[in-house]
Order: sequence, then C-alpha cells, then structure tokens
Amino acid sequence: MPQARVDALSALLGGELLGRGELIVERIEPLEAAGPGSIAFLSNPRYAQQLHATRAGCVIAAPAQREALARLPSAIVCADPYLAFARLTQWWAAQAARPVAPGVHPSAVVHALARVDPSATVGALAVVGAGAVVGAGAVIGSHGVLEDGACVGAHGRVGARVFIGARCTLGERCIVHPGVVIGADGFGFAPHQGRWEKIEQLGAVRIGDDVEIGANTCIDRGALDDTVVGDGVKLDNLIQIGHNVRIGAGTAMAGCVGVAGSARIGARCTFGGGAIVLGHLEIVDEVHVSAATVVTRSILRPGQYSGVFPFDDNVAWEKNAATLRQLHSLRERLRALEKSLK
Amino acid sequence: MPQARVDALSALLGGELLGRGELIVERIEPLEAAGPGSIAFLSNPRYAQQLHATRAGCVIAAPAQREALARLPSAIVCADPYLAFARLTQWWAAQAARPVAPGVHPSAVVHALARVDPSATVGALAVVGAGAVVGAGAVIGSHGVLEDGACVGAHGRVGARVFIGARCTLGERCIVHPGVVIGADGFGFAPHQGRWEKIEQLGAVRIGDDVEIGANTCIDRGALDDTVVGDGVKLDNLIQIGHNVRIGAGTAMAGCVGVAGSARIGARCTFGGGAIVLGHLEIVDEVHVSAATVVTRSILRPGQYSGVFPFDDNVAWEKNAATLRQLHSLRERLRALEKSLK
Amino acid sequence: MPQARVDALSALLGGELLGRGELIVERIEPLEAAGPGSIAFLSNPRYAQQLHATRAGCVIAAPAQREALARLPSAIVCADPYLAFARLTQWWAAQAARPVAPGVHPSAVVHALARVDPSATVGALAVVGAGAVVGAGAVIGSHGVLEDGACVGAHGRVGARVFIGARCTLGERCIVHPGVVIGADGFGFAPHQGRWEKIEQLGAVRIGDDVEIGANTCIDRGALDDTVVGDGVKLDNLIQIGHNVRIGAGTAMAGCVGVAGSARIGARCTFGGGAIVLGHLEIVDEVHVSAATVVTRSILRPGQYSGVFPFDDNVAWEKNAATLRQLHSLRERLRALEKSLK
Repeated sequence: MPQARVDALSALLGGELLGRGELIVERIEPLEAAGPGSIAFLSNPRYAQQLHATRAGCVIAAPAQREALARLPSAIVCADPYLAFARLTQWWAAQAARPVAPGVHPSAVVHALARVDPSATVGALAVVGAGAVVGAGAVIGSHGVLEDGACVGAHGRVGARVFIGARCTLGERCIVHPGVVIGADGFGFAPHQGRWEKIEQLGAVRIGDDVEIGANTCIDRGALDDTVVGDGVKLDNLIQIGHNVRIGAGTAMAGCVGVAGSARIGARCTFGGGAIVLGHLEIVDEVHVSAATVVTRSILRPGQYSGVFPFDDNVAWEKNAATLRQLHSLRERLRALEKSLK
Repeated sequence: MPQARVDALSALLGGELLGRGELIVERIEPLEAAGPGSIAFLSNPRYAQQLHATRAGCVIAAPAQREALARLPSAIVCADPYLAFARLTQWWAAQAARPVAPGVHPSAVVHALARVDPSATVGALAVVGAGAVVGAGAVIGSHGVLEDGACVGAHGRVGARVFIGARCTLGERCIVHPGVVIGADGFGFAPHQGRWEKIEQLGAVRIGDDVEIGANTCIDRGALDDTVVGDGVKLDNLIQIGHNVRIGAGTAMAGCVGVAGSARIGARCTFGGGAIVLGHLEIVDEVHVSAATVVTRSILRPGQYSGVFPFDDNVAWEKNAATLRQLHSLRERLRALEKSLK
Repeated sequence: MPQARVDALSALLGGELLGRGELIVERIEPLEAAGPGSIAFLSNPRYAQQLHATRAGCVIAAPAQREALARLPSAIVCADPYLAFARLTQWWAAQAARPVAPGVHPSAVVHALARVDPSATVGALAVVGAGAVVGAGAVIGSHGVLEDGACVGAHGRVGARVFIGARCTLGERCIVHPGVVIGADGFGFAPHQGRWEKIEQLGAVRIGDDVEIGANTCIDRGALDDTVVGDGVKLDNLIQIGHNVRIGAGTAMAGCVGVAGSARIGARCTFGGGAIVLGHLEIVDEVHVSAATVVTRSILRPGQYSGVFPFDDNVAWEKNAATLRQLHSLRERLRALEKSLK
C-alpha cells in the first residue's frame, strides 16, 4: 500500500502546499468518505460546501477554495484539481503495482519468427504468431493472442485474453482491456440469389499512440483499406467499430456505442453511451453526441447533438407514444384549422 | 438422461398428485410439444386451453386447472406452477450433470500463494494469481483468469474464460458465464490541453451472494470506491456496468443494458433489454424500466417507466419523425390559434 | 502477396475482358485510391464518374459502363460487379492465406472421447471435451473451447477463443469470430418471495450451414427446446440472441442487435445495427428493420419498419422532446379547437 507525505505530493503535482506538509496520507478517497489518513479532491465548485464537512487529512482544490481549505490539516492548491487528481492516481497506481518481470512465461506459445523485445512481458498461455512484434516494455496479458504480423508498440499494456488479428498494429503506450477483439472480419456480403456471398476482409486495423480500449470492445478489419483509430482515442467497453471506420485523434466514446462501416469521425469528438452512428457518414471535428442518440446523417458542424425519446411513467408514455403515431395527421389538422381561420 | 416417476417428482415439488403416480417421464417439454413420456407445465392461465390438446404424460399446473388436468394420464397440482417448474429444472440438471472432479487441472497455472479449496475445481489452462481465493466447491472453467487477490466464494460456478481482476470478489453461489470481464478499468479521464489524462482506477468490484452474470457482460472496477453488485442480482448477456455503480439486491437486467458510472440503482428493480442509465443518477427500489428506455434523470418513485419511439412502417415513421422535428413550433401555432379564438 | 494477370481474373469471374489481358495486378483497392498495379470495382452507378478519374490498372464494372471502361488499361465487364468483387476477394484471400497444417496443437487439451477429423486443425491451448466433434477440414482457433458433445461441422472456421457449450452444434462451413459465446444459459428465473429462482436451461443451440457469427456475439441455449439459427444467417459483432429464439434462413443482423427470448424471426430479414426485438414476438419473412428500431410487437407483413427519434442539435431536440411529453394533451387541445369551430 502506498503512503506519502503531503509535501512530497504537493511537489509532485506542482501545487501550493497549505498546512502541515509532514502529514502522511495512506489512501485516496472521495471527499465525503475521506478520513484523517486520506487525500481527497474537489473539482466541481458545485460541491464546495463539502469542504466544510470533510474529515480528509488533505484536499486538492482550486485557488478559489483557499479560504475553506485553510481550516483543514493540509491542502494542495492546484489550478486544475481534476488533472492533479488524475496525476495523483497515476503515481499511486505506479507505487501499488507489483513489478512485472520481463520475459515470456514458459506456458506461452511464441512462434520462432515473432519478435518480442527483451524488456517486454508475455503472460501465461499467450499465443504470439509468426512475424508478430511486441515492443519495448510492452506487456501481453495471459491468454492474449497476437496473430501473424500483429504488432503491439512500446510500453503497451494489453490485458488478459485480448485478440489482435493478423497484421493489425497498435502504436505506443496503448492500453487494451480484457476481451477486446481487434481485427475480426468486417461485416461484408454481396447478395446473390437469396444468399450472402462473403466479401473477404483484406484490410487490417491501425491504431495510433496512447489509445485506450475497453473490455470486450470490437474493432473490425477493413474490407480493402484499413480501419484507422487516431492517437489518443479512448473507447469504453462493449463498443463496436465497423470496418473502414476512421476515428480522429482524441475522440472519446462511452460504453455500448456502435459505429457502422465506413463512417468517418473527426477529432476531439465525444459520444455518450449507447449512441449509434450509421455507415458511410461523415462527422466533423468537435462534435458531441448525447447518449443513446442515433446519428442517421452526416454532421458537418461542431456542436452538441441529441435524439432520445424522453422517458416518462409508463401511462404517460403510452399516451404520448400513441399520439406520436398520428403526429403527421395532427399537423395536417392544425394546418386546416389555420387556413379556415384566415 | 434423467428419468423419474411422477409420484417422486410430485413429492419433490411439494405438489398434489393426480392420476397415475407410477408413470415415468424422460424429458421436460413445452406443453404444445410434449408427448406421453414428457412432463410439461402450465403457468399462464391464458394458455389454459392448451391443456385440452396436450399429449403430455404429466402436467404441472395450478389448482384452478384441476378439472382439465383430470383427463390427463397424470398431473401435479402446485400453488405456483412456474416456481415448481424452476425447481424441476434444477433437479433435472443436477441429475444430468457429469460430476466435476475437484482439483486443479494439470495445465492450469496456479500461483503458489493462491488459496484453492481442496473441494474446488480449477479447469484446464486457467490462470490463478497470487493471493487469489477459490472457495469450497467452487468451479473455475477452462481459460478462467483470477488476477492477484481475486476471490470466488464457495460453490461459485465460473464459466470458461471469465476474467476476474485484481482484488475483485464474488460472494457465494454466484454463476458467471463465459467471456465475462469483472474489474477492467472504469472509463475515467481528465481533459488536459486537448488530450485525455488517465485516472487510474484504484477501486475494485464487490459482488454479493447468488448473483448470476451473463456471457460477455462487463463490470468495471471503481475509481476510488468499489463498484458494488448486491445479493441475488441477475444480469443477462452483454451488459455494461460502469465504475462505482451500485446495484441493490434482487435487481434484474436483461441483455444489452448499459449503466453509466456512479449510478445508484435500488433493490428489486427490473430493466428491459437495451435500456440505458446515465451516470450519477439515483433510481429507488422497485423501479421497472421498459426495454430500450434511456433513463436521463433520477427516478425517485417506484413504478414502470418507458421511453421508446413507437416503430411503424417506414413511410409512416418518416412522416411522423419529420413532423416531430417541428413539434415545438406546432405547439406555438396551436397556442396562437387558441389565443386568437378567445 | 498474390498477383494475377487480368485475363486470368476475367476468366475466374466469368466476365468479359476489355483491354490488355496480360496486365498484372498486385492488389485490390477502392476506385479512388487504386493505382496502375491495382484492380478496383464499380458497383453503384452513382459513383460512375469516378471511372473518369481512376488510375486503376483494371476495373470490374457493369455493361452500362462499357464506354468509360474502354479508356482504361484493362477492365472486366460483369453483370453483377459487386458479386464479382466478392468472389475476387475470396480468391485473393485464398492465395494470401498461409496453409494451416491439419492436426492438434501439442498444447491443446483434447479429451480422449472427442472426435477430431484427421483433416481438421485444433489450435494452441484449445480445449475439446468428451464427445465433441470437429468435422473434416474444420479449424478451431487458439483458446477455443468445445464443451462435451459440442459439434463443429465440416470446413468450419472457428476463430480464437470461441466458446461452444455442451451439446451445441454448428453446421458445415460456418465462420465464427473471436470471443463468440454459443450456448451460455438463457436468462430465465421464476420470482419467489422477492428472489429469483433459477430455471436451468436444458436446451442447446442448433446452428445451420454457412452461418457467420461476429466477434463477441452471444447465442444462448434454450430453456427446454433449442435456440435455432437457420442456414446462411449472418450475424455481426456484439449481438445478443436470447434463449429459444428462431432465426430463419438467410437473415442478416448488423452489430449490437439484441433479440429477446422466444422471438421467432423469419427468413431473408435484415436488421440494422442496434435494433432491439422484444421477446415472444413473431416477425415474418422479408421484414427489414432499420437501425436502432425497437420492435415491440409482432410484424406480420413483409416491408421496411423504423422507429428512431430524429436527432437534432441539442437545443432544438430539447424543445421538441419537452413538447413531446405533452403531445397527448396537445391533441386534446386541437380536438377542442376543432369542436369549437364546428
């Protein structure tokens, strides 16, 4: 378990120390649950009054809270407390981590023509194919599968039983969670006499640097070209990315999003959970799509977009939904009334 | 294959036997498909007239059906036929099950500091980390991964290639289906200069007793606190549970549900398939959310809630959907008309 | 890397050769990206003007494009260019494929009572149970799990870490992508005194010939009867098929579709991504359901069906959504106006 002096943490985070720097904290906790041995943070000013009640030994907060912080045993004043908190968790996790010994677990099945960097780690029962590359300091979890020619860049952290298909590549410092499938076939068929003729998917998947991919998410290989995920993209769990999709740098998608084939998504976009993007659309940079919204046509202007049926108690919903099915005729009736009154 | 005398089954289920107790049944079948060697059940009185046509050797039904049951070769009268059917399937499955020998499969990779109960079973090619615990009578399927400190309580049935992350714990008698990922990182980032700074997820996942989790479902570990799933919760397949979510005892969710981070869900709730719950909401006990409904704000009163666009043939839908985009202005026009007529 | 003379490809595809048959192509590329060493295709006449700009060495197109094709180095005229393209990808993939040696990888765990055809391949670290069958020429990927009595028909291509539960069967020539779970328990419980009593799922899954199943898709076993997937069905990634569902031949579903238990779906239907089908419904043959549509009642006539809230910029959506919650009362007000004016 990590523990740290508050003055050391303040220095680490580049903040201004208030109160007793020699105080030691042993855990990070939410403000309302924190005790004397804990460090907490306040980011949203809406919750500022929690500062009066907290029992935390140390709180990270913005300069605006300086007054309330003064009564605490200690505090760290930072311009961006949420960012400071993020960096604190990174330091904390690094302290708590059991060191991973480099090398290939004896139970792994690694092809003679794979290139595993001597500083990389390949976990128990992993399978690494011919021509696959595992970069410096990268970690492949247990049961990972890298097919022929797959590549994990330097310092990648690939979780247990991740599948990376033939010729698919990840850049540096990617984090991939358990159950992810990168490079399964895209969904492509030509209809022929009532049957579906398979279009073999000859492209691959190219993933940039600093990408994180959540558990059981799937990214399909392209039909001819590659499917491309830009630098710094963050994907949550159970997301489906169809073949030939392109996602620009820094875009983030919450859980259960589905993006159909050949959609082109810009940089620095965000997608709420369960949003669906139809195929062959274009979405420009800095578009924000609300949860569960279905994007049925291209979005060519930055902004926030939504489209969700407002939920209600069941009786009210049933009435409104039933009326909705006559909406067009209601409009016609309204028009007729207006006309008759002119 | 199990087979049983009807009088023995009647005693097992605590029912009242009608007809020939010495009759032997060899399979459980739906009422409309059952033959003379089958036992069936009738639970929904709406289907009562199927009793007249069935060829089943034995039927489980409620006292209200006594008259129709009298003409069958045999019957078992139970106050709650659906519950009796559930118990019958349990007995049947237990008879049909191949006994699982306790012990660790020689191909499994079990850390010297793991604690596997002598009555537990660890399947082929499973990986069990340091400090992980497998309780009495528990079964870990092939390719299962328990990271360091993960814990499966007594009599758990963990399917093939389930992933249980470091320090995540399951109570007793849990059933976890293949592909489940418990304890991947929650989706947390601080925005910083157009990039996402990772918030390391320091919490874990705590799952109660008698929980069942469907195939490829994901439950993320908490950021600071744990993600908590109460006793008796039932989750279907491909569900996403975000970090720091709390789910009360006895709540059930159908397939493809997504619950965003920090939502607090009460006890004895039900969620239809594909429902989405946004983050940081509160849902009280005994709330029932219809399939595909998007819960965008807290629900503080028990009841049934819905919010689904009613589907229609495509032409009608297009007309109504187009009009919907002018709905606010329609209201304004209606208001103007009302005013002009006053 | 495959390469081929254009005249050979024309013969293979049964097309009519225009231009220089001795030209050699080394890759298949989209029309707009193709260079002199590439073969491309034009299927949608909407993009016909791309033919004037393309630098492709060879283009496959329909007879209507004959004139524009004449100016290219070479071309192949086919009645159905998309089908010809599909067949070309199949030939290409077969040329590029590394031959898979038949036999069982030494690290696989195969039960003495399993029946693996001598021409079949079982990958590294796969687990094959008692009575399981792997047909002629079939390939089981690494980490595949076939439980007792599971069956993969001849020439099946089962990807890495696919799970096939006890007694579940796949027909011939099926393609199953990584992470698929076939035959986990259906979601069935009887409520009893505030708890859920498990209904053991005694059925299995029966999958026809020529079925393709996308990554991390789940198909549950039936409660009593089997879950049945017809010949030639194509399922994309992350789809949930509940217990006792029946899907007719040739039906295709895009990613993230969910089908609840006991739904009966006809032949030659299509479902857009994220569509949800409620349980116990009937959908007849040749029904086409748009993406993200929620099917809440049976569909007894062929046709296209939709039900999606039209998305909009957030401000417009909020206004319309708020008004939608008063839609029923708007109708009442309109009715009152109409009455007062008569």
